[in-house]
Amino acid sequence: MSNPASDAPAGERDVALACAILKQRFGERLQTGKSIREQHGHTLSWLPNQPPDAVIFANDSQDVADIVSVCAEHKCPVIAFGVGSSLEGHLNAPQGGVCIDMSQMNQVLEVQADDLSVRVQPGVTRKALNTYLRDTGLFFPIDPGADASLGGMAATRASGTNAVRYGTMKDNVLSLRAVMADGREINTASRAKKTSAGYDLTRLLVGSEGTLGIITELTVKLHGIPESIAGGVCHFPDVESACRATIQTIQYGIPIARIELLDVSQVIASNAYSKLGLKELPTMFVEFHGSDSATAEQSELFGEIVRDCGGSDFEWTKDEAARNKLWQARHDAYWAARQMRPEAEAVITDACVPISRLADCVEETRKDIEANNFLAPMVGHVGDGNFHTMVLIDMNSPKEVAAAKEFSERLSARAIAMGGTCTGEHGVGQGKTRYLRDELGDTVDFMAMIKQAFDPDNILNPGKIF
Amino acid sequence: MSNPASDAPAGERDVALACAILKQRFGERLQTGKSIREQHGHTLSWLPNQPPDAVIFANDSQDVADIVSVCAEHKCPVIAFGVGSSLEGHLNAPQGGVCIDMSQMNQVLEVQADDLSVRVQPGVTRKALNTYLRDTGLFFPIDPGADASLGGMAATRASGTNAVRYGTMKDNVLSLRAVMADGREINTASRAKKTSAGYDLTRLLVGSEGTLGIITELTVKLHGIPESIAGGVCHFPDVESACRATIQTIQYGIPIARIELLDVSQVIASNAYSKLGLKELPTMFVEFHGSDSATAEQSELFGEIVRDCGGSDFEWTKDEAARNKLWQARHDAYWAARQMRPEAEAVITDACVPISRLADCVEETRKDIEANNFLAPMVGHVGDGNFHTMVLIDMNSPKEVAAAKEFSERLSARAIAMGGTCTGEHGVGQGKTRYLRDELGDTVDFMAMIKQAFDPDNILNPGKIF
Repeated sequence: MSNPASDAPAGERDVALACAILKQRFGERLQTGKSIREQHGHTLSWLPNQPPDAVIFANDSQDVADIVSVCAEHKCPVIAFGVGSSLEGHLNAPQGGVCIDMSQMNQVLEVQADDLSVRVQPGVTRKALNTYLRDTGLFFPIDPGADASLGGMAATRASGTNAVRYGTMKDNVLSLRAVMADGREINTASRAKKTSAGYDLTRLLVGSEGTLGIITELTVKLHGIPESIAGGVCHFPDVESACRATIQTIQYGIPIARIELLDVSQVIASNAYSKLGLKELPTMFVEFHGSDSATAEQSELFGEIVRDCGGSDFEWTKDEAARNKLWQARHDAYWAARQMRPEAEAVITDACVPISRLADCVEETRKDIEANNFLAPMVGHVGDGNFHTMVLIDMNSPKEVAAAKEFSERLSARAIAMGGTCTGEHGVGQGKTRYLRDELGDTVDFMAMIKQAFDPDNILNPGKIF
Repeated sequence: MSNPASDAPAGERDVALACAILKQRFGERLQTGKSIREQHGHTLSWLPNQPPDAVIFANDSQDVADIVSVCAEHKCPVIAFGVGSSLEGHLNAPQGGVCIDMSQMNQVLEVQADDLSVRVQPGVTRKALNTYLRDTGLFFPIDPGADASLGGMAATRASGTNAVRYGTMKDNVLSLRAVMADGREINTASRAKKTSAGYDLTRLLVGSEGTLGIITELTVKLHGIPESIAGGVCHFPDVESACRATIQTIQYGIPIARIELLDVSQVIASNAYSKLGLKELPTMFVEFHGSDSATAEQSELFGEIVRDCGGSDFEWTKDEAARNKLWQARHDAYWAARQMRPEAEAVITDACVPISRLADCVEETRKDIEANNFLAPMVGHVGDGNFHTMVLIDMNSPKEVAAAKEFSERLSARAIAMGGTCTGEHGVGQGKTRYLRDELGDTVDFMAMIKQAFDPDNILNPGKIF
């Protein structure tokens, strides 16, 4: 099976003509300045910038359909842009083309409180949504590190610290509207909580990274804000005992809402950046959601498990300010890590393995980091078997760049060998294409068949996934 | 877009030659007797029987790959059979062909206790799996009425009474192995709990009803058996107050495990069949899973909500025998209903709507039943907005059959108009093809593109979904 990215050679494309036609239609809403183009190719990734030829600010789904229709006619690549917090080069334009900036499509369209769902435009960010919802008693739980847009989060199948309890975007999207490569807008599913009505196009578009359709509207699940939230910190002599405590907690059926591991290097970084004063040991941030008595009971029970596994006392609190400080520090882990070497770039890995193999995978990776003398703090969504190392490298040193690439390659191979994946929540983008076939073999051919069927001219975000 | 079912006319197929070749390969494991063929086209559905030309009992995935390869060469239809509990004619062979009986592929291959998952062959039934797991402290929660096979449950995206807490098959399959139409066996995903590694082929195959690939192995999630289970019964003056209580319970964040509604007619049926002695009012069966104190707290809280909504006292217990009697009765609802008119067939509907519209949908449906003088008990997975009516009709009365078809059509239209679906958990099969486009419009074209790409000769379960 050939690579769909090569099926429509750039030579046949007429990007300039498409842009000229779109300029007539969109006027000042189509921008071609160098800095705006570079900004729209830019992500939090270390991959080199490949700007699009033009950026158009869409106001509604009709704009998106019009842009895609013109681009389809001229085989011009189209890339959707949320806030630019992707980590795998999803927004780069290796074959040029048009970037559709979705930030103006930022309306919350309808809160369906009785159904615990909300209909939003794709440019709404997770924080904006929760601010909008603050009087409803409901919240949207998915929390990647950045304040990402919901469209972007769906496109990359994002998750975050709450996933152990609330799942990922895969689990929290009820239905999508999307403009397909032929310009048609489709609705992937009804609003029903369950459905067996044909192929699951909702889950097919979630995680398709803009290569099968451009998301123009989402209906996502909401959850009641828990009556009580308890959380706290504990530390462990080593990563293995932390993993053992996690496995026991989940097996016991304690409905833990967040369980995050920081390695010693990250604790040092976060102590400095977020003024935490934590002991320099593998450390866990934990949270429970439920009734007042349930969260207390769960905290006590978890504390017993931690002690059984050789960990410290589990210090927990229901105090909101203390909890917020902790979780702000967790979400700032990326910036804390970067502060350890401010002039460096961070290469962020995203391995995810069956939880039974997490301690092994983390330990081998730790040894690899030490053998290479990397500065590479590590954080883990330990309840899901997913962890990130942030390898801080000098992009002007070819030696460091090469070493980091080889490290990333070894880590992907290690995770795959343990029955895991090279990407738990960041997506394939440009950065992981080389590992996808290692992980899934011929299965990638069937993904490519879908791409070929839906987008035969390969105009939607070309050069990604495949 | 043309209907894929018509793309490969039956005339080009050479079913007889495929069967002859397979007979050489499989000997006595290939059966062509009339009764065995009819039994393999038969389901719990009222749709007329369309038997395959041959039935082959597969021992392993190599058998399945061999059968599909021969059938692919001769464009012979292939239909996978689990236990035959489908309700929408999924197992019928309208174009003839070969049925692969998966019942011999019934091994539990590996319990991965630390990962809360298990690897099984597709012929393992849900009850057999839970029997196998009984010493592990783990269980598999998905419970359609029948003791279905896991392969069949995945293929139809099945769920049941536990779905409100544990989700459907979509949420509980980690990865699948499947033989595709070209005879290749693929693995849809790693064993990692989370993944962003390309298109979600796991979720694409779940619910694809054997039309995209034949499932040869599943890795599914397990859950810890709760420390404590509390459950009980309450009744309501009307369906609307029952629905209001359900909405409030979910909004409040009470992690209810099961919440099932029986209408008056079903209560009468279950009283007679299961000797329950319940008041003849809309009745709810409810269950909570958690710690001893949590389930007690939840039961009390739920009782308050029920009273606030005008319901009865909520009588609950932790006694296992009492709970088992209740849930056996719930799973026997189908047989209890049929006992009301033993000579009749049951036309089972499967509408699912946003929970905010459930009371309206049930009420309008109830009026429709009364206007038609149907005997049609109703049960509802009320936490998911999904309910089933069992219309008992005399299949020898063309008038009754026509009236039931029209009723089913009105119900599907009603659910769709309310933002819901014509099928919450039974699938499309042959029975719901006519409603799929009403529900999803052009979206069906994109489903058909996938079918066309994966199975261009339309050999896999032709005549279903499309």
